[in-house]
Amino acid sequence: MMTPLRLGIAGLGTVGVGIVKIVQQHADLLEKRAGRPIVISAVSARSKFKNRNVDLSAYAWEDDPINLAKRDDIDVFVEVMGGHEGPAKDATAAAIIAGKDIVTANKALLAIHGQALAESAEAADRVIRFEAAVAGGIPVVKSLTEGLAGNEITRVMGVMNGSCNYILTRMENAGLSYEDVFEEANSLGYLEADPELDVGGIDAGHKLALLASIAFGTQVDFDAVELEGIGAITIDDIHQAADMGYKIKLLGVAQMTGRGLEQRMSPCLVPDTSPLGQLEGGTNMVVLEGDAVGQIVLRGAGAGEGPTASAVMGDVMDIARGLRISTFGQPANTLRQARAARAAVPAPYYLRLQLLDKPGALAKVAHALGEAGISIDRMRQYGHHDTAAPVLIVTHKTTRTALEDALADFTNTGVVSGAPVAIRIEEV
Amino acid sequence: MMTPLRLGIAGLGTVGVGIVKIVQQHADLLEKRAGRPIVISAVSARSKFKNRNVDLSAYAWEDDPINLAKRDDIDVFVEVMGGHEGPAKDATAAAIIAGKDIVTANKALLAIHGQALAESAEAADRVIRFEAAVAGGIPVVKSLTEGLAGNEITRVMGVMNGSCNYILTRMENAGLSYEDVFEEANSLGYLEADPELDVGGIDAGHKLALLASIAFGTQVDFDAVELEGIGAITIDDIHQAADMGYKIKLLGVAQMTGRGLEQRMSPCLVPDTSPLGQLEGGTNMVVLEGDAVGQIVLRGAGAGEGPTASAVMGDVMDIARGLRISTFGQPANTLRQARAARAAVPAPYYLRLQLLDKPGALAKVAHALGEAGISIDRMRQYGHHDTAAPVLIVTHKTTRTALEDALADFTNTGVVSGAPVAIRIEEV
Repeated sequence: MMTPLRLGIAGLGTVGVGIVKIVQQHADLLEKRAGRPIVISAVSARSKFKNRNVDLSAYAWEDDPINLAKRDDIDVFVEVMGGHEGPAKDATAAAIIAGKDIVTANKALLAIHGQALAESAEAADRVIRFEAAVAGGIPVVKSLTEGLAGNEITRVMGVMNGSCNYILTRMENAGLSYEDVFEEANSLGYLEADPELDVGGIDAGHKLALLASIAFGTQVDFDAVELEGIGAITIDDIHQAADMGYKIKLLGVAQMTGRGLEQRMSPCLVPDTSPLGQLEGGTNMVVLEGDAVGQIVLRGAGAGEGPTASAVMGDVMDIARGLRISTFGQPANTLRQARAARAAVPAPYYLRLQLLDKPGALAKVAHALGEAGISIDRMRQYGHHDTAAPVLIVTHKTTRTALEDALADFTNTGVVSGAPVAIRIEEV
Repeated sequence: MMTPLRLGIAGLGTVGVGIVKIVQQHADLLEKRAGRPIVISAVSARSKFKNRNVDLSAYAWEDDPINLAKRDDIDVFVEVMGGHEGPAKDATAAAIIAGKDIVTANKALLAIHGQALAESAEAADRVIRFEAAVAGGIPVVKSLTEGLAGNEITRVMGVMNGSCNYILTRMENAGLSYEDVFEEANSLGYLEADPELDVGGIDAGHKLALLASIAFGTQVDFDAVELEGIGAITIDDIHQAADMGYKIKLLGVAQMTGRGLEQRMSPCLVPDTSPLGQLEGGTNMVVLEGDAVGQIVLRGAGAGEGPTASAVMGDVMDIARGLRISTFGQPANTLRQARAARAAVPAPYYLRLQLLDKPGALAKVAHALGEAGISIDRMRQYGHHDTAAPVLIVTHKTTRTALEDALADFTNTGVVSGAPVAIRIEEV
């Protein structure tokens, strides 16, 4: 009989319990596929006596995940606690020192401390795997790191926060305001304890930063991700974008430009006929573009017990089968520190503004755009409500700088009421 | 410096040349990612002096791929010749005996001789990798074998022949007949030298058989794939399916049922709002379903120089990085011989028939369906042309056996002209 691979599972929330179930229910299947048994030696969680509807009696218990990390009877430390400081960080570091491989679902931990952890793991000849940290059950880290390893990656995009996509599609389908759907989603438990992690784009930004590191051979740099949440999206924007053939998505985009690495997680318009545009509800989608492969689109559940546990087990099986690969696809000490580039690639923009009912108003707005070197692709003016009329403009490709010049000019025209809305249109 | 991984490339058509280009253009990137250089030692093709727009002068040349397979200066035999007998088979077998790992894009070879080749490779402690054999650049073999290794796979589906999907979408978009689009595609070089490999579903059937083996731990059994090509699909069927909210796709489905392994590659109706229904043109899409992960959808180019070479290089990089995995995800000698089940899972069907202009005709047809235990979900009768009226029926779920009983009864009613069309509606 082959040597079993012995897991220590830190965290027995939804994901941890999902992992236990897979190991218990599919023991034979896992052994056949890995060529060796996968067993759980010990577990750790905050409360030992909570009922989790799963039999843990065969496993040693540790109150402290750091003690779990140091146990002699585990080979792999499975970190599914969450949080980028405190126990998750300390126990992961301890596990590396103790000579364990790491499988983690913790995007925040790796987005913030990934470089240091990867260097320390690689110095100790240990691996860190994190498929479950990005887009749940979708094998996107594997596809990017391994499947597309022959490509120069040109762009990575994705809808990687199911809660935001749920909110945006629910707003559209039910005609509800952001505030109403936010409350609904929050009361249904769809949002993190701190909802800003979801709706502010932080959680999705962590994921994007991890993918960018693999894609471009750069040190993970979450601080360089331009973050903009979905809180300012109105039902009017959604409807008017739809009228013009677009959907609004919280879209992550990472690409290497002549001016540096661009990483954005922000609302974008995408064509409603594109795979990203057609993505409804809580599903995730990641688009990988490489110079040889062209465009690959991966879609699936981005969260939940089964999908996340599936991703963790994929990593566990890789380790059991002997795959030992650098955390970010190449040795951590060869990853470059990329210069951060703000939205360097020109794009068309969707603009919505309230035009005051004054003679020559539209001409003044058009003039301000022209002065900034921005040409107009399409424009629609709707009827006046009270003193202002909504105007929608789709521009041709322009730089962010030119756009900001034009928006600043709008306030000087004296014909624009309030702050215009500007949303990038991403070519997907 | 680390030991290079040395390739011998057999076949210098589109794919072989694509591999050479990647190895030449991305030498640094590949070395950084693999931790060792990837080099080409020798190549082989039918004609040495053909201009391939790529510099082969640094590589040894072999006229005979068997000699290439035996060379001492190669570690990996890259087989991109094609064909399931003759040189491809002989050279692959010779390479295994000579102690080489195999990377192949040859779906026919593995669909027919995969079990024997895998057994022989595993006895010699060699690996066979074949990402490029299924759905071109999409990392589907990797996703299924590795990423979803923690799942019991419940169903695999896919549109895996881009030419057929091109023909079907072109028929719909241009309103052309099958024959016209077939001629067009053939003259554009979109079809294999023997077009029946494409339009008869054989090529896609090979791919399905390979995925089914991994998914269900069974010996690859192409002969058990129920094959039906797209040659009988009319523009009327496409339009009328569209009227009812469906698209017609050449869809592969593999699932394990109580009665055995069902493998089908045949035209099916899928909802036009589903990812499969929205797939246009020559793109491929594979849907993987597992008990933990739910549904994963993978989409990308299914053929072409870059995508196929990308898949080959993904396999090469895995070998360079030390991943050694059984050909079909578990040792070949543990793969079961599955009993073949004919479309065992009940499904709704789309029926189109020509009803003669006789009193009580529709009642007789409805009665025949009722007698076979089939209930009707939707029915449409169109106006009469000459003596017959087209009737469309969407049934509720029924077995294939019951359906065949009903179709046989139709001919006895004396009110149905010609052979009815019956197409399965797949729940995706």
